[in-house]
Order: sequence, then C-alpha cells, then structure tokens
Amino acid sequence: MGHGGGGALSAELVAGLFAPAYGGRTLAGLADSAVLELGGARLAFSTDSYVVRPLFFPGGSIGDLAVNGTVNDLAMSGARPAYLSCGFILEEGVEMAVVDRVAKALGAAARAAGVEVVTGDTKVVEAGRGDGVYLNTAGLGLVPAGVDIRPQRAVPGDVVIVSGDIGLHGVAIMSVREGLEFGVAIESDCAALGGLVEAMLAVTPDLHVLRDPTRGGLGAALNEIAAAAGVGVVVNERSVPVPPEVANACAVLGLDPLYVANEGKLVAFVPRGEADAVLAALRAHPLGAGAAVIGECVAEHPGTVVARTAFGGTRVVDLPMGEQLPRIC
Amino acid sequence: MGHGGGGALSAELVAGLFAPAYGGRTLAGLADSAVLELGGARLAFSTDSYVVRPLFFPGGSIGDLAVNGTVNDLAMSGARPAYLSCGFILEEGVEMAVVDRVAKALGAAARAAGVEVVTGDTKVVEAGRGDGVYLNTAGLGLVPAGVDIRPQRAVPGDVVIVSGDIGLHGVAIMSVREGLEFGVAIESDCAALGGLVEAMLAVTPDLHVLRDPTRGGLGAALNEIAAAAGVGVVVNERSVPVPPEVANACAVLGLDPLYVANEGKLVAFVPRGEADAVLAALRAHPLGAGAAVIGECVAEHPGTVVARTAFGGTRVVDLPMGEQLPRIC
Repeated sequence: MGHGGGGALSAELVAGLFAPAYGGRTLAGLADSAVLELGGARLAFSTDSYVVRPLFFPGGSIGDLAVNGTVNDLAMSGARPAYLSCGFILEEGVEMAVVDRVAKALGAAARAAGVEVVTGDTKVVEAGRGDGVYLNTAGLGLVPAGVDIRPQRAVPGDVVIVSGDIGLHGVAIMSVREGLEFGVAIESDCAALGGLVEAMLAVTPDLHVLRDPTRGGLGAALNEIAAAAGVGVVVNERSVPVPPEVANACAVLGLDPLYVANEGKLVAFVPRGEADAVLAALRAHPLGAGAAVIGECVAEHPGTVVARTAFGGTRVVDLPMGEQLPRIC
Repeated sequence: MGHGGGGALSAELVAGLFAPAYGGRTLAGLADSAVLELGGARLAFSTDSYVVRPLFFPGGSIGDLAVNGTVNDLAMSGARPAYLSCGFILEEGVEMAVVDRVAKALGAAARAAGVEVVTGDTKVVEAGRGDGVYLNTAGLGLVPAGVDIRPQRAVPGDVVIVSGDIGLHGVAIMSVREGLEFGVAIESDCAALGGLVEAMLAVTPDLHVLRDPTRGGLGAALNEIAAAAGVGVVVNERSVPVPPEVANACAVLGLDPLYVANEGKLVAFVPRGEADAVLAALRAHPLGAGAAVIGECVAEHPGTVVARTAFGGTRVVDLPMGEQLPRIC
C-alpha cells in the first residue's frame, strides 16, 4: 500500500521503475504536470487516478476530487486549466444512482473550475475486482508566456508560503471512515486552485515553485522540492497553520499534520522581494484567506527539510515512507 | 457488465448520464477523440482505461493495449499522436516484477508508436479491490490543417474499407482465457495505427470517417457511424476479411465475428473517387496489407446497418447490447 502513498516508496517506483521503462525526458522532471510544446502552444498535461474511500465525504466526493486534483496539478505549472478527460472503472453491481451522483458532482466541479470534460471512457469489472467507482482524469491547460514554475527553480532566499490551514482533507476522510467525531465537523478543503494561481501570477510571473500538498502532505511536498532543486528548506513549525480540530484529531489518530493530505491548498516558493505582494494577493482571495509565510529556502543541508520546533529546537522532516492514510484520494 | 461493453448499454450511459452531467458541447460528438483548440493549436485528446484479463496474452499485453488503444483513438481524428499520460491502479500484493513487465511493455509500445509518456500516477487499492493492474492512458495529438475526420461526415456514396482481418484480438484473449486451442495459434492484432493513417492522409486529406472497431467490433463501429451521420450502411458479408481460424473459433465459442474486438484495425468511409487510391495506400503498408472494400454508405434506412449475406439475402446488423466478451481491453 505504501507504493501508492506519495512518499518515499512512491518516489522509488517512479525513479526506479516507470522512468527507465518509459525513457524520454519529461517524466523525470517530477513536477505535478508535464509542460510541453505542441503545434506552437505551450501546454501543461497531467493525470491522476482516484480511488478514495468512501466515495462521498464531508466537503466533497470522488467526483470533486477527480476534477480539483487534476486541475490543481495543472495550476501548479502556472497553467490555466482548460480541458479534462474522464475514465470510469465501475464495479459490477454498483447502483446507477451512485454513478449518476458521481458524474453530476464531477460535472458541477468542472463548471466551478472553468474546465470542460471533453472525452471519456467507461469500463466495468466483476464484483470483487473493484470498489464501486474508480476514476481517472487527465487535464490540459495553457501555460502563459513568461511563466516557468517547477520544483527545480527553488533557490536559497526564496520565501515559503502556504495558502491556508493544512490537514483538513485527510482528517475529514478519516473521521467519516472511522466514524470518529471531534466535536467540530471537519470538512475536506477540496477546491480548484486555478483562480488563486491566476491572482498570484497577476502580482508577478516570477513564482519559482508551486505544489499542492496532497498525498504525503506538506512534509512530502517540501522534501520533493528540496530534492529536485538541491536546496535546504527550513520550516517554522509555529507558523504552519494547523487548525485546532485538525491538531486534536491528529493527536487521537496518531498522525503528524505535516503528512496529512490537503486537496485545496498550495505551497509556493517565491523570491523574497515578491513575497509580501504575493501573500497579500493570496489573502485577498477566498481560497487563500489563511495564507502564511512558513519558512524559507536555504543553501545549507541541500535536499533536507528542517523544522524549527515551538520549543526552539530543530528536527528533520523526513519524506514519509508511504501514506499514513490509504486511499485518501 | 454490459454497460462497459461498447454496445447499446454503453451508448445509453454516455447519452443519458455522462453527457447531461458534464454539459458542454464536445463529448456529444461521440468520436473516438475530442478535437479542440488550445493556444492556437488544433489538438486531439482522448482517454481509455484498460482492465484486460489476463494481463499478458498472445500478441500483446495490457501495456501494449494502453498505448495502442489511445494512440489509435487519436489517429481516428487524423491526428499525429504525440504524448501520453499513464495512471496505474495496482492491487495490493501484485508482484513488482509484473508491474515492471507491464511498464516495460508500455514503454516499448510508446517508442514503437512514436509517442512519449510524459506524466503519470500510481494508486494502490487493497487486495480484493482490484485485479493486479488496471491502467488508464490519455493521449494528445496534433490534427493537421485541412483534416476533418469524424463520424458525422459519412455521406451516401462513401466507400467503406476495412484495413485487414477482423476478430483477432477478441479471439486471442478468449482462447488464452478459456484455455482453448484452435489448431493455429491466434495472436492479437494489437498495433498502433498512426503511420497507417498518415499513409492514407498522404493520398487525400478528405477522409470522411475513421474508426477503430474495438469493443463491440465492426458491427458496433458501423452502427455508431450510421447513427451519428444519419445514413445507412450496406456491408457485403462475403467481402469482410474473417480469417478461417477466427471463423472456426467463433463457431465454437458462439460468437459473431462482426462483434469481436480488434485492436489494430480501422474502418474508413472514403469518397468514391478516392477509394482506389486509399485502398492501394493501405495495402502498401504492413498494417494494411489485408485491406478490403466491404460496403458502401447509402441514403436508404438511415441509422441502420444491413448485411448482404453470402446467400444473397439481407439481414440487419444491430448494435450489440453489451460486449460478448467482458474485459477484452
């Protein structure tokens, strides 16, 4: 299960098995989406499969995830998301009303994100060879001229900003899956970030890195960036926005909020001179109201993420081995 | 199971559930791929999921299918296939050697087809919630200027050409799945058709319709074209190239070769004046050596496919309800 978790085992699978098998140059970039040229257009192209359990959860559904997850991967290249494909793998016997509800959620999420589902496919497998509905979406977007956002562009001096409260998606899924209640209802943050990225790009096209910390959470995202760019990252643990209900739930469940999945947040590496303006632009947008500076990019300890703890000490934030929570997205 | 079979139930699902849920205009075109404009480029975009059982079969594997199936959907719009995404859904416990073998087959097929796998994703589900490996690929291609190939362009007078022997893929899968032997080894025709379509376009850009008769076979493909264009189709049953080993296997298995899936064939609707030249171009290509004229497009019985039988009679070739063979691709 760890190989699907977005942590070290997933990275090993891509670097050790898929990249050599496919050859080519683009997959090795390891960004959320590939950026390529076709017919004179500069395009972002990305895919994700979705196997979340349960199909419907507080704050969203597999249909919302399938749109927002792929749209966000495109947006993390600075692209304006435009078109989606969608493949359903149905388990024999799943109720048509469930399929209909998923498709309607997907359609509504696409309209909200300003993208169009233009091509699709449906396969059916026998009962016991699936789990109701699995989805895959692939997305296409247009990268504006002058925009070059990718993990390799992080440089010492960059300010690290997160767009809001972390841990909501993973905790929402776990609370409904395990039937837990934490006093306050916890909803997934599942949302499309295309508009938020546009607002940031309106301030400056020179954003260095954007990443949506999904599987593996903020901890995995920062490790991937540090490794790709050969830089160190220092996080001020006290500055990371963890809502009290997430902190409480993580304490009960034995989870570290830094590794819990988000589906409507982004982390940005921004040149120091642009950081205040970008932060202001984030906070002026409904999806970035809780944005905060959480750390900086440094020349020391390349490839390693270090947290300054609330007590003045430091600790290494490792790449998680797998996902703490299976089938989170 | 029938809803995944590429027949009437699949069509009902798209028209009655997915198209209304997503809205938009492009899905309603019901071509093998969507053709769209982005950044001034005219692109074809398509997706398919692959759940074939077994993963490896005579003549190919799920990895070959995942490349060739999506590449062919692009080629059926006249596009030159360029880029693929690939999503794996792994069942917990599948051997890494199997995943590696699938990925290598996929990489080799991509190189053979002249496309690059540029973005991917891996999810893992619990044992008993999958079947080893499911794949999804989405593909991107560039549509040459002046090319407009889609089911709606079929007109009375068009000549209907098939590029070679039908039924090989479905019979190859069934023979290995059921442990049947038919004297002669039957291999899947799984192949990428981008080069064959380029050879046809070199003769004339004015091809009206191309379709690869996969799930539901030639019978479903012709019915879909007849319905989309509001034309009748007449097939001369004696002219349809059915190899004797396929005919024998179909007799044993109780199948109609017209409905058996192909993975390396195409059917073309071509203006009468271009038919001889297109047929010659097909026959000059290794993947089109067995090409044959099998019928014509007529103004009578719009939406209906009629076969002239070997005995001089006629019969209606219905859209099949589902797939005769589940999980064929």
